Amino acid sequence: MDFSSDTAAPAHPKIIEAIAAVNHGTEPSYGADAVNARLRQQLTECLETDDFEYWLCASGTASNALALSTLCSPIGAIACHQEAHIERDERGAPEFFTGGAKLRLLPGQGAQIDETALRAALTANNPDFVHETPLEALSLTNLTECGTAYPVAQVEAFSELAKSAGLRTHLDGARLSNALVTTGASLAEMSWKAGIDVLTLGLTKTGAIGCEVIILFGPMRDQAAALRARAKRSGHMPPKMRFIAAQAEAMLTDNLWLSLAATANSNAKTLADMLCAKPDVSLAYPAQGNEVFCILTPEIEALIQKAGVKCYPWPGGSYRFVCSWATAETDLAAMRDLLAEA
Amino acid sequence: MDFSSDTAAPAHPKIIEAIAAVNHGTEPSYGADAVNARLRQQLTECLETDDFEYWLCASGTASNALALSTLCSPIGAIACHQEAHIERDERGAPEFFTGGAKLRLLPGQGAQIDETALRAALTANNPDFVHETPLEALSLTNLTECGTAYPVAQVEAFSELAKSAGLRTHLDGARLSNALVTTGASLAEMSWKAGIDVLTLGLTKTGAIGCEVIILFGPMRDQAAALRARAKRSGHMPPKMRFIAAQAEAMLTDNLWLSLAATANSNAKTLADMLCAKPDVSLAYPAQGNEVFCILTPEIEALIQKAGVKCYPWPGGSYRFVCSWATAETDLAAMRDLLAEA
Amino acid sequence: MDFSSDTAAPAHPKIIEAIAAVNHGTEPSYGADAVNARLRQQLTECLETDDFEYWLCASGTASNALALSTLCSPIGAIACHQEAHIERDERGAPEFFTGGAKLRLLPGQGAQIDETALRAALTANNPDFVHETPLEALSLTNLTECGTAYPVAQVEAFSELAKSAGLRTHLDGARLSNALVTTGASLAEMSWKAGIDVLTLGLTKTGAIGCEVIILFGPMRDQAAALRARAKRSGHMPPKMRFIAAQAEAMLTDNLWLSLAATANSNAKTLADMLCAKPDVSLAYPAQGNEVFCILTPEIEALIQKAGVKCYPWPGGSYRFVCSWATAETDLAAMRDLLAEA
Amino acid sequence: MDFSSDTAAPAHPKIIEAIAAVNHGTEPSYGADAVNARLRQQLTECLETDDFEYWLCASGTASNALALSTLCSPIGAIACHQEAHIERDERGAPEFFTGGAKLRLLPGQGAQIDETALRAALTANNPDFVHETPLEALSLTNLTECGTAYPVAQVEAFSELAKSAGLRTHLDGARLSNALVTTGASLAEMSWKAGIDVLTLGLTKTGAIGCEVIILFGPMRDQAAALRARAKRSGHMPPKMRFIAAQAEAMLTDNLWLSLAATANSNAKTLADMLCAKPDVSLAYPAQGNEVFCILTPEIEALIQKAGVKCYPWPGGSYRFVCSWATAETDLAAMRDLLAEA
Repeated sequence: MDFSSDTAAPAHPKIIEAIAAVNHGTEPSYGADAVNARLRQQLTECLETDDFEYWLCASGTASNALALSTLCSPIGAIACHQEAHIERDERGAPEFFTGGAKLRLLPGQGAQIDETALRAALTANNPDFVHETPLEALSLTNLTECGTAYPVAQVEAFSELAKSAGLRTHLDGARLSNALVTTGASLAEMSWKAGIDVLTLGLTKTGAIGCEVIILFGPMRDQAAALRARAKRSGHMPPKMRFIAAQAEAMLTDNLWLSLAATANSNAKTLADMLCAKPDVSLAYPAQGNEVFCILTPEIEALIQKAGVKCYPWPGGSYRFVCSWATAETDLAAMRDLLAEA
Repeated sequence: MDFSSDTAAPAHPKIIEAIAAVNHGTEPSYGADAVNARLRQQLTECLETDDFEYWLCASGTASNALALSTLCSPIGAIACHQEAHIERDERGAPEFFTGGAKLRLLPGQGAQIDETALRAALTANNPDFVHETPLEALSLTNLTECGTAYPVAQVEAFSELAKSAGLRTHLDGARLSNALVTTGASLAEMSWKAGIDVLTLGLTKTGAIGCEVIILFGPMRDQAAALRARAKRSGHMPPKMRFIAAQAEAMLTDNLWLSLAATANSNAKTLADMLCAKPDVSLAYPAQGNEVFCILTPEIEALIQKAGVKCYPWPGGSYRFVCSWATAETDLAAMRDLLAEA
Repeated sequence: MDFSSDTAAPAHPKIIEAIAAVNHGTEPSYGADAVNARLRQQLTECLETDDFEYWLCASGTASNALALSTLCSPIGAIACHQEAHIERDERGAPEFFTGGAKLRLLPGQGAQIDETALRAALTANNPDFVHETPLEALSLTNLTECGTAYPVAQVEAFSELAKSAGLRTHLDGARLSNALVTTGASLAEMSWKAGIDVLTLGLTKTGAIGCEVIILFGPMRDQAAALRARAKRSGHMPPKMRFIAAQAEAMLTDNLWLSLAATANSNAKTLADMLCAKPDVSLAYPAQGNEVFCILTPEIEALIQKAGVKCYPWPGGSYRFVCSWATAETDLAAMRDLLAEA
Repeated sequence: MDFSSDTAAPAHPKIIEAIAAVNHGTEPSYGADAVNARLRQQLTECLETDDFEYWLCASGTASNALALSTLCSPIGAIACHQEAHIERDERGAPEFFTGGAKLRLLPGQGAQIDETALRAALTANNPDFVHETPLEALSLTNLTECGTAYPVAQVEAFSELAKSAGLRTHLDGARLSNALVTTGASLAEMSWKAGIDVLTLGLTKTGAIGCEVIILFGPMRDQAAALRARAKRSGHMPPKMRFIAAQAEAMLTDNLWLSLAATANSNAKTLADMLCAKPDVSLAYPAQGNEVFCILTPEIEALIQKAGVKCYPWPGGSYRFVCSWATAETDLAAMRDLLAEA
């Protein structure tokens, strides 16, 4: 039973097929290939606009950090949730890629930023006071680190607050597909229509090998050349980019990415339901995507450990279980059997 | 006719097969997978030692820069050839990853460092003089940027010079396979046995999708944890590392990488011979790998441009033609026909 | 009435005299001068040890950041109070000088780190978990940002905690003189004897023009050459260092620095007493140095604003008044008169 | 006999007087003081324009690096002479302050950039080629590292070349006063009128304790806030800035700085003449400021060493002798006597 992470899952077979399919003939290196040309058209349709530039990247950490480096200078700060991936799990990548920018950490339930705290931070922000590092950007994460989903209206509201205070906005969408399935929002609605300036669109956790799309909207397109240069000098301009593009193409074709996310979410719901059916077991946060954060009883904790179920104890006392498109029915069934022992 | 670069070639079919073959079941993320475990054993055999640590990376630029960041502090300098890839073609990646180290550029024919210039730089080096940035590392490239191959004895001699001056040594092996085929040296002979502390073993240009191995030898193993941390914060610790490991495994199995390099070198020799058979055409540098740098006649230049042959004019007046394992026989034949017109 | 900051005060006349006194003849540049030679001897006496190396710096921000760069790598983190000067008032200098290290912010009353929070952070610290940035150093500030003084026993206890968790320790002593006067501790007791590895000994706020001493104790002496190199490349190795050394020498002679701090503290006590004598006025934090944080009544706030008294509203609702060695008796008398109006 | 450096000299007495004169009463910190207000007016007159912003800095290295950080991004390069101070003597400060920019080194006699080499570099510059780091700025030094002076027309010509290629321009004026005296040019003529965007106006080597003025001209004024922020985070915003401003004020008053430079130049001419009067002794470069680079005979070399004359052997075989406003007549006389022995 492996609920450790969606990154432990294999890639979807269509990803492998797509890689094999583009593996013929020579192609210009560094993104000038025919697969990228097709992908641009596809992105235009998915995003419902052509007012964007994009860059492909095999790493989620790098995608976030590159995105942030277009939004925040070395002498600025980025507001984010105190449990955000960019703060907790990227070993200082934002500081590295921006050349020393700071992260300003905000509290909030379920890894969602508390609006009062955000308002207070924005009110206190004073770019003219040279001694303090001023906020230049707001970074949101959807799906959040606690598996909750911001509705579109909340992303809009936060973007508007941020922009009226002179900040620009970033959306870390490592599990955006899961949030879109849950909220029913379209990609456009959750990104540029909601005031997002730069989106990190993750497809790796959804089922690719390694494929993230950094998307610069509207005026941020001016940063496209600098983004490419930063990608180059950080080693995120691999020569054979057709193979990353092929993954994105496969994912967007026929909305495979959303189908896979729907399956993952459904698996998570199944798991959450079976866990919560037990007495004294409850969710730490609403399971609004493919992650289940559950407060277990000591008896069930013991069962789980004995059975070697792969999952993570989480700060705050819960356990994190992650499902994916590939979560085995046998794993879910085995978990059901295990819980029956309690 | 595409002789633009070995990175324009497709991956070898065995690479695709290997990726497909490991795409089943869950695997621990970030390098703790079973494929990496097998690869470690395989590397031990290829390197003829177990006194090493390694890290996989999909990018050659990042591999070099990560390697250099283990060898040189932010307040040190790296000696390299003035035409080295790390100076010319990586958009400041070494400076970025090291936190501001400098590159000290040395001259030399055929992109090989001139020994007199190296000796002078080492003699002038004074780590106790606080105002100047002292050399901390020497970086060699084999195959060089001009397609020439350092023999093992030269790598040994330069390593010894560097070490006696307190420097550590790096070998950029983006096209190491081609150099090994030409020189007949083994991987061990060309690396740790020749005094190399950190090797960037490139397999991408040889025929992988994206696969480089950073190898820390001997005492440099102490830097393994820092290397992993630096890889993480620069986005070079993708979760699904089994797919990079599978490429390396396929390449090393039955010495596929050396077979592919032999084919590429042979293609280059064929091309060089047909070019040099023309009156007044000559090689700018000996073609000791899969690259041909050729000084053409104006007539042939015109023919090539008219035919749309993909190759690059190079500083110094020559043209660079690169062959790969996948160089099409039809391309070589077409070139022969084209030259016949002259 | 100017209680804005001790940095608004002039330098003590002996500082000017000392600068004038060394202004004759040529002297080797960059710290090899005779004044520094004398200062080293003087520091040895004041510190009660010769097991140290030091570097002079005209800037408190740079002194802290340089000190931290010897204690924390680019891939590590520094624990400090969430209101620490290095976090709030240095525009990202620690991030800049360390090459991207993170600050881990800890809560606590009166800008003193809460011991429970520190213990929790140390317990959670896991240098082997590559995704999170591990703590490498603890930075304390004495006098704190809220004008409170850590007693020696607390510094000792925190140092011991930190070291048993593998961290090294820094003391930001921008107002250390004020804390020493209050606690009665000696410089040695409050620094290396209490387990501090690197001390930033501030003399600027005490009454110099610009003079801080970065002191590396014990094994940290190994970092002396790197510290000098980092000072050089950050522009903190001015050629005519005799003039900074002369300030330090004057300050340490006959314990001038402690006398000036005693005067400043006494002025602050006078001010605190007259403020707290008013009904409903109270201290936000104990006035244990030369700073008074006071919660005023609206009436007194209005009086102060009308009179143009220079002081700062502080987060949390208090006002900060800072005294120095040069606080004018006329200013204190004028304040007394003003308060009498309430 | 101390001809080691102009930085070994004491400060001019008027500098000490100026510092003493402003040492009364409280003053706003960080540059908002009355002395700076006066200085701004004075600079306006000296520069013959008010279309500038400035920042004071005690360090020449930091002044250059801060200036360059306003002109070149982390993904750009700065063209400079291969012997420039920013390359040779600042321990990587430009790389540090810019966040990783590269220096592109150009050759040229007497530490003056060769025009052909500059034209070639500009022609080869291709900001659209993402793999190479494009030139963003040109940095000139006047007086050069070899003691030669660029005439105004040469600065103009180089600025024009640079600007027509899209670069911005920096002038390192650590010894600008000496160059102005020699060339007869005004400060305005040698800076903004000649197309310089950012000037580092050095007064330390001229006779201050530590005082450099970074001046942003015209459109570069937009960078003033960022410059202040960068100064803050690098520790170059000391609180008591009145003391640096007082030095600048004293220097500019009645053109003291130019008088001191004239004296220094005159001393150098005296020294050069007496050296060159000896058979077989010649200048390595024209002595166009306060530095003399002289090729000595072995006999004179031996005499000088035996007498303990402080001067530096220089790359290329010459010796560097530096004079200042304070070069002792006794030292010049002693040198004359010494040479008489040869």
